[in-house]
Amino acid sequence: MFNSKSQLDETRLTSRQVCKVAIVGFGTVGSAVAKLLCARTGEHSLDVTHICNRDVERKKANWVPDHVCWTDDINEVLKTDVTVIVELMGGLNPAYDIVRRALQSGKSVVTANKQLIAYHGSKLIELARAKQQHLAFGACVAGGVPVVSGLHEGLAGDRLLKVHGILNGTCNYILTRIESGALFADALKEAQQAGFAEADPTDDIDGFDARAKLVVLARVGLNAEVTPESVLCRSIREIAHIDFEYAHELGCTIRQVSRAELRDGQFLASVEPALVPLDSPLASVSGGQNSIISTGEFGGETVFAGHGAGGNPTAVAVVSDLLHIVRYRCAGVAEPDRPAATVYDVSNDFETPHYLRFVVMDSPGIIAALAGVLSGHNINIGAVFQRPGHDKAALPFVITLESCKASQAEAALAEMRAFPFLVHQPLRMPILR
Amino acid sequence: MFNSKSQLDETRLTSRQVCKVAIVGFGTVGSAVAKLLCARTGEHSLDVTHICNRDVERKKANWVPDHVCWTDDINEVLKTDVTVIVELMGGLNPAYDIVRRALQSGKSVVTANKQLIAYHGSKLIELARAKQQHLAFGACVAGGVPVVSGLHEGLAGDRLLKVHGILNGTCNYILTRIESGALFADALKEAQQAGFAEADPTDDIDGFDARAKLVVLARVGLNAEVTPESVLCRSIREIAHIDFEYAHELGCTIRQVSRAELRDGQFLASVEPALVPLDSPLASVSGGQNSIISTGEFGGETVFAGHGAGGNPTAVAVVSDLLHIVRYRCAGVAEPDRPAATVYDVSNDFETPHYLRFVVMDSPGIIAALAGVLSGHNINIGAVFQRPGHDKAALPFVITLESCKASQAEAALAEMRAFPFLVHQPLRMPILR
Repeated sequence: MFNSKSQLDETRLTSRQVCKVAIVGFGTVGSAVAKLLCARTGEHSLDVTHICNRDVERKKANWVPDHVCWTDDINEVLKTDVTVIVELMGGLNPAYDIVRRALQSGKSVVTANKQLIAYHGSKLIELARAKQQHLAFGACVAGGVPVVSGLHEGLAGDRLLKVHGILNGTCNYILTRIESGALFADALKEAQQAGFAEADPTDDIDGFDARAKLVVLARVGLNAEVTPESVLCRSIREIAHIDFEYAHELGCTIRQVSRAELRDGQFLASVEPALVPLDSPLASVSGGQNSIISTGEFGGETVFAGHGAGGNPTAVAVVSDLLHIVRYRCAGVAEPDRPAATVYDVSNDFETPHYLRFVVMDSPGIIAALAGVLSGHNINIGAVFQRPGHDKAALPFVITLESCKASQAEAALAEMRAFPFLVHQPLRMPILR
Repeated sequence: MFNSKSQLDETRLTSRQVCKVAIVGFGTVGSAVAKLLCARTGEHSLDVTHICNRDVERKKANWVPDHVCWTDDINEVLKTDVTVIVELMGGLNPAYDIVRRALQSGKSVVTANKQLIAYHGSKLIELARAKQQHLAFGACVAGGVPVVSGLHEGLAGDRLLKVHGILNGTCNYILTRIESGALFADALKEAQQAGFAEADPTDDIDGFDARAKLVVLARVGLNAEVTPESVLCRSIREIAHIDFEYAHELGCTIRQVSRAELRDGQFLASVEPALVPLDSPLASVSGGQNSIISTGEFGGETVFAGHGAGGNPTAVAVVSDLLHIVRYRCAGVAEPDRPAATVYDVSNDFETPHYLRFVVMDSPGIIAALAGVLSGHNINIGAVFQRPGHDKAALPFVITLESCKASQAEAALAEMRAFPFLVHQPLRMPILR
């Protein structure tokens, strides 16, 4: 059925041929990629021939081999015969245009740009296929954790139903600090000083960074195409130390959890702070680590965890993608087709138990009033927790709800918002058992 | 540099061509593989054409498609035009002979046979290469956990220095039960009743099963070829509940840990019970789960965890390997060469802190005597622990050693063995921080 030996010999290239690589974007990751490639003495020769960056003069480093061409003109790179463009600029513009032109001009592309793949993945994958080029993006999700190849290759034999995990190390760091007693604002400042968080932390804190990664994982693991905007993002800004105290009483801790799930033909996804059991793999993820759990119909749960960011781990993912391309290209072929992704509307109406934290001006009848609303929405109360030692004028307490849809809980909360005894708006988090 | 489009078109096969699969060995995994393949409606058609098993009549199942040929004669299968033989018989004989003949007759092979790859991997890989066939063995290690592809593909860009983890679910189950208070013998019986452990549990308990997996991981992750017999195996038979009590005092628990490490050109490996910190990823591995941690020079630690055994998880690994082969074969090529593995002599002389548990007939001067021996071997004592409430005639207590080589600790223990106050021989375990 398959090709004969003679055909093989005819198309196979020797492994000593050189794969020319242009690095576009020479920041922390780009420079780590160059260093890793310079350090390699493997069977496949990956040769950096071009480094492209704005204002390139200030980037020049003496450890880079002399033959490398430094340029700030991407057009110069696109005109050459480089085999692969490594796009490490980040952001949608001009990265989208550059990657499109690279593919169109018959070059393969490796990118670590999660927003690019989340927003334009389908079009770019199609273009790469049409041009018989590779588009590899393993570095988009969770830095050095090989989850993209793990879902694409290692678990290809399973039918994956769900992918969830911790995809943003900054949030994880901040939440860990709040757990230890820090205020949100101080924890954020610490994260910024430690180099974890950006000056404008919105992308991390409010979930947009994790959302882009989740959209990429949904494509790879669930073969689902969804628009990033359709995935609900809820911020971790409202989480306080008191929430960890209550979470611990429930045998849980709090993490920013990204979830995508196929259930009865529906696609559910969200990025939000959630309670996870203390003995779950997500609870043990510390500091800036990432952890992803895939759930397959046949293989059950598989955990991938490691360094979610940083120059070297991300560079490992980039170089692994380069080697993957070289292996296929040395074999003389483009990557085989995969089935087209299914386009889904996204629901964020997960059905789980919920944690509701209220801060009230204490007075008689509060529980009765809240319980009345919940009962009116057909929601069962799991338990009520009230830790001693708090000011009666701003008393925090928690009601847990038995499993119900997020929309049901939100409808009840909307009705509660009118109650005059609320000092803050209530905080809702799913409890993921 | 690479092939032009026209060459690509010429060699590429359409994805609708069928890959014929013969399953050899139709037990739990074989039947799960057949079910998974029957359930697939993917882009690549994997068609089971033959099922081969001793006494095949009793194996026939009505859910298997009518066109499948059932046979107990492997020669019949080898004479056909099947593309891939899936070897699921286990054991070295006759599996080795069958896999060899399959490759020689121009068939690719997928196997879940860890002993086969541990003992004969090099020869078979070389034969597969010479015959331009694939030999895939992702199912050999940790069942459904995609660690073989993860190390081969996802972390290809890193330089791996170390692989360690929990590779035997039976030991993990038994140790977890001893931790909860069970005696070793009872925990083993439970594991056997739960279907975890074999009637003869030696392979699991004494480390030979994990050793074969470690040898396979060393090949894949560290590109190292070592003989299984050269890797030290130490049994978990001596572990008692009291050891968990002392381990907890040290902030640790006890796991059967398999380790392989390249250090200064030396290859170190062992399979043995060890103390691991309670907050480490290995401590949180429960029941029959497996967990593998790779350490890379650039990407740091990466964790892979999931179901280490069972029909369905292992079948997922087998089918993922089949899909990998189909992708390459549909592309018209054999797998590209990888560099030949380096042959190493194995040292098991890891340098770590150690846990020594003694059971003595109490009398004055015991600690002094033991400390004297340790001092004579230039070993520093970390701490001495003695929990109250034990019989003076068989008093268990623990001495921890500061970091020293295993050989140093063993030399000291050999000298101690003559002491008349010892009720049992001392138990030594490394402490892995």
